[in-house]
Amino acid sequence: MLIVMKAHASEEQVRGVCQKIESLGLRPHSIPGSQRTAIGITGNEMELDPGIFDEMPGVQEVIRVSKPYKLVSRDLKEENTVIRFPGTDATFGGNEVAVIAGPCAIESREQALATAERVAKAGAKFFRGGAYKPRTSPYSFQGLAEDGLKILAEVRDRYGLLIVTEAIDNESLDLVEKCADVIQIGARNMQNFSLLKRAGKARTPVLLKRGMSATVEEFLMAAEYIMSEGNYNVVLCERGVRTFADHTRNTLDLSVVPAVQRLSHLPIIVDPSHGTGKRNKVTPLSRAAVAVGADGLIIEVHPDPDRALSDGKQSLYPEQFDELMVEIRQIAGVLGRTVANPVANPGARRTSPVAATAAGSAAAR
Amino acid sequence: MLIVMKAHASEEQVRGVCQKIESLGLRPHSIPGSQRTAIGITGNEMELDPGIFDEMPGVQEVIRVSKPYKLVSRDLKEENTVIRFPGTDATFGGNEVAVIAGPCAIESREQALATAERVAKAGAKFFRGGAYKPRTSPYSFQGLAEDGLKILAEVRDRYGLLIVTEAIDNESLDLVEKCADVIQIGARNMQNFSLLKRAGKARTPVLLKRGMSATVEEFLMAAEYIMSEGNYNVVLCERGVRTFADHTRNTLDLSVVPAVQRLSHLPIIVDPSHGTGKRNKVTPLSRAAVAVGADGLIIEVHPDPDRALSDGKQSLYPEQFDELMVEIRQIAGVLGRTVANPVANPGARRTSPVAATAAGSAAAR
Amino acid sequence: MLIVMKAHASEEQVRGVCQKIESLGLRPHSIPGSQRTAIGITGNEMELDPGIFDEMPGVQEVIRVSKPYKLVSRDLKEENTVIRFPGTDATFGGNEVAVIAGPCAIESREQALATAERVAKAGAKFFRGGAYKPRTSPYSFQGLAEDGLKILAEVRDRYGLLIVTEAIDNESLDLVEKCADVIQIGARNMQNFSLLKRAGKARTPVLLKRGMSATVEEFLMAAEYIMSEGNYNVVLCERGVRTFADHTRNTLDLSVVPAVQRLSHLPIIVDPSHGTGKRNKVTPLSRAAVAVGADGLIIEVHPDPDRALSDGKQSLYPEQFDELMVEIRQIAGVLGRTVANPVANPGARRTSPVAATAAGSAAAR
Amino acid sequence: MLIVMKAHASEEQVRGVCQKIESLGLRPHSIPGSQRTAIGITGNEMELDPGIFDEMPGVQEVIRVSKPYKLVSRDLKEENTVIRFPGTDATFGGNEVAVIAGPCAIESREQALATAERVAKAGAKFFRGGAYKPRTSPYSFQGLAEDGLKILAEVRDRYGLLIVTEAIDNESLDLVEKCADVIQIGARNMQNFSLLKRAGKARTPVLLKRGMSATVEEFLMAAEYIMSEGNYNVVLCERGVRTFADHTRNTLDLSVVPAVQRLSHLPIIVDPSHGTGKRNKVTPLSRAAVAVGADGLIIEVHPDPDRALSDGKQSLYPEQFDELMVEIRQIAGVLGRTVANPVANPGARRTSPVAATAAGSAAAR
Repeated sequence: MLIVMKAHASEEQVRGVCQKIESLGLRPHSIPGSQRTAIGITGNEMELDPGIFDEMPGVQEVIRVSKPYKLVSRDLKEENTVIRFPGTDATFGGNEVAVIAGPCAIESREQALATAERVAKAGAKFFRGGAYKPRTSPYSFQGLAEDGLKILAEVRDRYGLLIVTEAIDNESLDLVEKCADVIQIGARNMQNFSLLKRAGKARTPVLLKRGMSATVEEFLMAAEYIMSEGNYNVVLCERGVRTFADHTRNTLDLSVVPAVQRLSHLPIIVDPSHGTGKRNKVTPLSRAAVAVGADGLIIEVHPDPDRALSDGKQSLYPEQFDELMVEIRQIAGVLGRTVANPVANPGARRTSPVAATAAGSAAAR
Repeated sequence: MLIVMKAHASEEQVRGVCQKIESLGLRPHSIPGSQRTAIGITGNEMELDPGIFDEMPGVQEVIRVSKPYKLVSRDLKEENTVIRFPGTDATFGGNEVAVIAGPCAIESREQALATAERVAKAGAKFFRGGAYKPRTSPYSFQGLAEDGLKILAEVRDRYGLLIVTEAIDNESLDLVEKCADVIQIGARNMQNFSLLKRAGKARTPVLLKRGMSATVEEFLMAAEYIMSEGNYNVVLCERGVRTFADHTRNTLDLSVVPAVQRLSHLPIIVDPSHGTGKRNKVTPLSRAAVAVGADGLIIEVHPDPDRALSDGKQSLYPEQFDELMVEIRQIAGVLGRTVANPVANPGARRTSPVAATAAGSAAAR
Repeated sequence: MLIVMKAHASEEQVRGVCQKIESLGLRPHSIPGSQRTAIGITGNEMELDPGIFDEMPGVQEVIRVSKPYKLVSRDLKEENTVIRFPGTDATFGGNEVAVIAGPCAIESREQALATAERVAKAGAKFFRGGAYKPRTSPYSFQGLAEDGLKILAEVRDRYGLLIVTEAIDNESLDLVEKCADVIQIGARNMQNFSLLKRAGKARTPVLLKRGMSATVEEFLMAAEYIMSEGNYNVVLCERGVRTFADHTRNTLDLSVVPAVQRLSHLPIIVDPSHGTGKRNKVTPLSRAAVAVGADGLIIEVHPDPDRALSDGKQSLYPEQFDELMVEIRQIAGVLGRTVANPVANPGARRTSPVAATAAGSAAAR
Repeated sequence: MLIVMKAHASEEQVRGVCQKIESLGLRPHSIPGSQRTAIGITGNEMELDPGIFDEMPGVQEVIRVSKPYKLVSRDLKEENTVIRFPGTDATFGGNEVAVIAGPCAIESREQALATAERVAKAGAKFFRGGAYKPRTSPYSFQGLAEDGLKILAEVRDRYGLLIVTEAIDNESLDLVEKCADVIQIGARNMQNFSLLKRAGKARTPVLLKRGMSATVEEFLMAAEYIMSEGNYNVVLCERGVRTFADHTRNTLDLSVVPAVQRLSHLPIIVDPSHGTGKRNKVTPLSRAAVAVGADGLIIEVHPDPDRALSDGKQSLYPEQFDELMVEIRQIAGVLGRTVANPVANPGARRTSPVAATAAGSAAAR
């Protein structure tokens, strides 16, 4: 059930409805929009009588939601969610197409800093790099763990890049939460419901990757798990699905972008690196992702891909990334969107985004 | 095996090599390029000794081809194949992104002419419309057959549009060949090898749609069937593949465009109408298809989609098609390509493309 | 629409209803059951008023059919269809699990006769072997064509085996129809509707293989195409579908057997040779197919698989086939079904099944 | 790398090799076989020189393993792994086909005990029932948690059934480990590597379900994660994969059973309840699973499926389960295997399997 407040409902009236919901043993989720506030209800609301709220002051309408997801739905919030990172002008879901770039895994301080400088200069505002790597084999490189997180902190400090890095279990999430600006949940964990709930208790935005064979409904329900715990800053990410096709590592399903945008207010970005698994296809599919209307891209870039400890084949050379940024900037322009410009001296951008993020996440809610 | 002639090899030298091949019971396929001519050999060439050709006059190099496809391969022809339609400036594989538009099926003269006028004005140079419809149910509308072909002839005559229409068996191909500028082979017939061979004997270009679960190799081998019979004007078409995903009718696999372009010199276009099955996804996926580098689009447009006898849900309203053309024109510009401009009075374009096509197909070879 | 006649309706009453249907421009399909006759109606029956038939003599009930398929449906015919081959005791859909065995392609008289002798001795009543082969590459062995059909005729004559062989287009179907006891339509042609209609005009039973990515509804609709033209003797065949899984050539979908048996009265058999593509998996999956309730098996057997011109990797050695027959005979027993016993001297079985078949097909209708 | 000891190598010699491996910073996995012991090495063994071990006393052969999995491989251990539960005669991987039965979720003490009595009487030796349920929606019934575990303990105590129940994160695994005889890891967690490692540290056997789109290699690598931590008692379970097919909830891939059995010594069982999602298909597919050679079945049974809180549509009525046991007992017989007989008074079976299991697991290693 969903309660839409009047345009000029007072904060007190919103609070009154929320208290009423809590008194019934349910959980209110108050989502402010530009025009009016909507309040989602989660919990066992089966026998709830809409009449309870109809006549409360400030309530305009009570809506029964038929879809299995509620908080992720456009029924709850018509406008796009824009996730902001205070102290910076970076967003997900705003007019600017967000660009996250960096190596698959943090391998060393040198590798991370070299990559960071290049992608920051090219205009990326977010840096990716795994400290915890979910690998198919127990014998493969599993990431530098906390040492990797320290390197990421230095990357942010030096180049003013916002950090996106993966958590693979509750323990790593505890650490990632303290250090990252965006917590990544990987495709293999899209239905690790325990981890989703833990991410829902974090105050940091979450980047949720679509599972390898997840339907749109399952994908949105995974986001609902996070939101139902109170973290409303979720970015969805298409990264290719598994099909019979063997010319790419996965089959990038770009139609999911407009499909999600119809159903949900959450931003959705695209990962053409995992989506294709081949360096020569990353740039054309990045252009296509921006053209289809994606809110951002996440791209693997490595200074020396042939020696990468993971995913080398799909990592761009830094100069290829420079060109990619030029191309997507033009495509974005056709859709009336922007891609950030190159930055001559990213080091000068050094603010203190860590503290800012905390404030920002709060602001975004 | 593949014989590359010297840059200045004479026609007589090319003929000499071809005669030698024929004398060995094999079939030569002489493919002129901008720099030099290459001669593909098909037939049972297993025990062929390359030395036979090495010393012939005009021969530069003899190459063993390891891939199962030969004539479709970039090994045979490095430059893109450009298919021309003399008497017009329309092409597939040239700098202009080709646009084919029209209804799924020809339902009546009025429906066809109304649609044709609208798409011609918006800039489309090719008109699609099925006279023979492969339908899942024997009880569904199967097309107007020869009456449909007559209507298509009138469309061409009135609006100067080039006609693309489907053949579903040898009998319909006999008739379609006489009337159409491009013979379409549908996805369900991609491995109807008998029909492919028959299409290979036609002198009209062939639009070959990818089968619902065809790998790239199978797709290219299907084109090879057509080419091996002597028809070298094949346009490939991605139309979505079958996967578990249920938010679209099929999963449009845009990565196949750069994959095919690496392996083959043939043009490849995209069908976002069948690829998504939903009207609201046709425009964003059309933008994406042009951005990924497709050589053209085939789009379903219907003046009254809600009453269409087939595929109404995925057909654009004419005004949506107008907007789509504006958007893809801008995207094409970013890639240094063009999309034809609107035409105020397409009726005035009326040349006689029928005769021209016949000549053109010949010229294209 | 479906008209169920009374248990003791006279032939004249049935004829009366059929004539009424024809007078309305529609086509009656009279399907006798053990208890009563049902009459299916095909054609554009949209505006048909059930009241027309309600009061006709002998009519018990008029049923609107909601499913897109009619003639294949259990709504039309509750009992299983049993296809008989007079002059023999072979059936599809009866209590005996039918076994079809033989090489992928007829390569030579010696190869065919040697295989036939072995499979006949082991108990197979049907012999498979392609004279027309649909091959992915135009340069692969395409079958012996009419010479292959002559060899098949000799196989039948010598060993009393019923012949199952594939038709790939209308031309080959004309020839196969004259020679074979069962016309096979391959997976790649499952939606070659023109070929299905042509097969529907034949008087010979048809073995219809499921397409590589066909849903059950599409599979049954393909059978409906054949039946709607008057050929009611259709055997369905599961041969594996295309998925991401790479440990077998295709993924054999055994659940389709009970799924089809719920919806349709037609027999359904399984092809574990194509379904797995690997010799070592043919026997276990054959056991599983019989255990799941399949009405038969089609198995590739080759006297010298390593030199087979096609599908050698999935062909059994004759001695492996002997063992397979022993195992499935026991499994069939658990389900109260039988598998034919070994035959010491299959040559003695030599009746004249050709003539018998023609009569038999008629009888089966 | 893999070190095969001589047939009569002493325990001391085995210990010597293990100590050598540890001294190199690697981990030895000593796997006794009926003839000889093999020692697997895990860790970063890239630069390891086989010569180090060649001349050590008791070493017969040093083998480089090319496959990415080692401990799961038949290269390491040729004989089948048989997992025993001391104090009982139940096994996985032995001659008896193991049967696990019970409700999807533990809903109440009454429901659990009623089901347990029925399945125990029919011959099942293992009881399934989820206390922690991974559900697509955060608003669906998530299981009774610890209360469910208590009910399961009572089930074991009353009916002598061995308990199989799912752990969904490290926290629930801590609890499940104490109570269950087999820890289940669900399909959605097949690549939750953190959970796999934790399960590898448990001393209780693990039932690992195949992920919805996992290849055989990924499936075996997931088992390798568990084994690499020292828990060698892993049972694999096929539960259907995700494909385009819509007649069943998932597509049950029975060919994976012989595929896994070729590559690995681990037992593999089949879940036809999730594999089909439809009650009427569970029995035929159970027969097929036993016929293909599976080492066991896991079946959902519910006393009142229409009121089940989860998976009611695929749960058998107890009487259907009785019949299923009869049918698979006969099929197993054909393969020379057994299925346990009905038990008149399962309560009398009450030993103390808890304590026994702990000993048993140790014995199994």
